[in-house]
Amino acid sequence: MVKREMTRQFLEDAFCGESKAHMKYLIFAEEAERKGLKNLARMWKAIAYAEFTHARNHFKALGYIGSTDENLQSSYDGEHFEIEEMYPVYNNSAEFQTEPEAVRTTHFALEAEKIHEKMYKDAQEKTKDGNDIEDSKFYICNVCGYTTEDEVPEKCPVCGASKEMFKEF
Amino acid sequence: MVKREMTRQFLEDAFCGESKAHMKYLIFAEEAERKGLKNLARMWKAIAYAEFTHARNHFKALGYIGSTDENLQSSYDGEHFEIEEMYPVYNNSAEFQTEPEAVRTTHFALEAEKIHEKMYKDAQEKTKDGNDIEDSKFYICNVCGYTTEDEVPEKCPVCGASKEMFKEF
Ligand SMILES: [Fe+2]
Ligand SMILES: [Fe+2]
Ligand SMILES: [Fe+2]
Ligand SMILES: [Fe+2]
Ligand SMILES: [Fe+2]
Ligand SMILES: [Fe+2]
Repeated sequence: MVKREMTRQFLEDAFCGESKAHMKYLIFAEEAERKGLKNLARMWKAIAYAEFTHARNHFKALGYIGSTDENLQSSYDGEHFEIEEMYPVYNNSAEFQTEPEAVRTTHFALEAEKIHEKMYKDAQEKTKDGNDIEDSKFYICNVCGYTTEDEVPEKCPVCGASKEMFKEF
Repeated sequence: MVKREMTRQFLEDAFCGESKAHMKYLIFAEEAERKGLKNLARMWKAIAYAEFTHARNHFKALGYIGSTDENLQSSYDGEHFEIEEMYPVYNNSAEFQTEPEAVRTTHFALEAEKIHEKMYKDAQEKTKDGNDIEDSKFYICNVCGYTTEDEVPEKCPVCGASKEMFKEF
């Protein structure tokens, strides 16, 4: 594990850069697909995967991969910060600056993070003796990220999207 | 598109946060899979997808989705910065602080980014009349992110991994 503070800060920054590049390329791949540019979309997805390996290498070098319980705790902590601090402040500031698009996108995220926080907590309880969680389906609203288990709702309770917009996992 | 500067800065920061959460959950999903916790791995992948929708909404609100040419230029610019500025400095600092793991992970990234920069440039040329790029296969080294087209090498020229470690796209 990398010890020196400056090198750690640089790797943290590089992890952010690789994660953003990965995400940007997935978004651009989707755009290319919508335009019928299938090969270009595939190229963007392939390069996004290369950025995934870079991010994973930086993350490992930082010592951030732990036990299942530690990984669930790290996931929980991130969601908790977003719910308690980040998204309420950003949503409130977007209202204050009269930016409706930013109000909407931060509201969508906040609502989903509340569910994620609970899911990680529950999973921590269920896996504490080394067991897997039960075999259920997960459904994600492709518009707002609303997350639910077992059954797709007729309409997304957060953004109103129809059930066809849900992606099954 | 969001106009006010403070709200833009907040959305930029939220885009970074969502991209990192997405990446972290994909890494944790892989770890859970290695341990045979298949349902937990699926839960992490599902939630990673929810974070993708949040990141995409923030990215759109920032006005960062453009034409195919603009998206390729934005991809090229990111790689160019990483090659010319970011990774050489981080790699040099890791050497200076005698952190071999950080030297290795920044070297791996730098080598792949050089190839990515060229691929985006070539794709820009090929797609400038609205055409798709040719139908070729892409291969990514799952250890270092080395990226190649059409044929898998016997050994990764950057990290020495064997051909079984390559992922096809
Ligand atoms: Fe990279
Ligand atoms: Fe979340
Ligand atoms: Fe929704
Ligand atoms: Fe999110
Ligand atoms: Fe790259
Ligand atoms: Fe490699």
